[in-house]
Amino acid sequence: MSGIANTPKPPYYAVIFTSELTGGEHGYEQMAAKMVELASSQPGFLGVESTIRDQDGLGITVSYWDSLESIRNWKDHSLHKVAQEKGKSIWYQRFGLRVCKVERDQFFEM
Amino acid sequence: MSGIANTPKPPYYAVIFTSELTGGEHGYEQMAAKMVELASSQPGFLGVESTIRDQDGLGITVSYWDSLESIRNWKDHSLHKVAQEKGKSIWYQRFGLRVCKVERDQFFEM
Repeated sequence: MSGIANTPKPPYYAVIFTSELTGGEHGYEQMAAKMVELASSQPGFLGVESTIRDQDGLGITVSYWDSLESIRNWKDHSLHKVAQEKGKSIWYQRFGLRVCKVERDQFFEM
Repeated sequence: MSGIANTPKPPYYAVIFTSELTGGEHGYEQMAAKMVELASSQPGFLGVESTIRDQDGLGITVSYWDSLESIRNWKDHSLHKVAQEKGKSIWYQRFGLRVCKVERDQFFEM
């Protein structure tokens, strides 16, 4: 799951999810890993990029999708909805979620 | 510089920069901090989100801008161009850079 996502030619879509945890673990890592696995099996999923959290608990996860419809379907997935609810009630102190259209991209490899 | 960026109502633009370092430091952190500071003073800059790197050297930095023109001006900034060259010749093993239009967003605070 780590590394730079191998996405197709633009346009495609990105969901930038930036979050700060409350500090209590309460099964967060397990659920987060399960959600990445589940997202990866959804129609229209193109890839995901994620880093570890810093000392303030800030994390960024970017997932890539072929269409807004695929993003909506994933948002409405029943297991994902359970995770969203637990996120708001337990895990997340704050989050920002941005749905974007990727218009151009550029890749470099040494 | 840390935390979730306080961006205006969409639409606005995001640059998702995902990178893997070669492993040699060679002044990277200093230049990266300088570039964030310099970017923050550019016309059209709206905010930045960044996390620490994991053990594989993967990092994600998302900067937000008011327009494609502001992104282009920052891309062409003379000091930024020097950093880009050093990035390709020394610091980055790989990177992906995506320019996106943020179409909708959502924020949560506990």
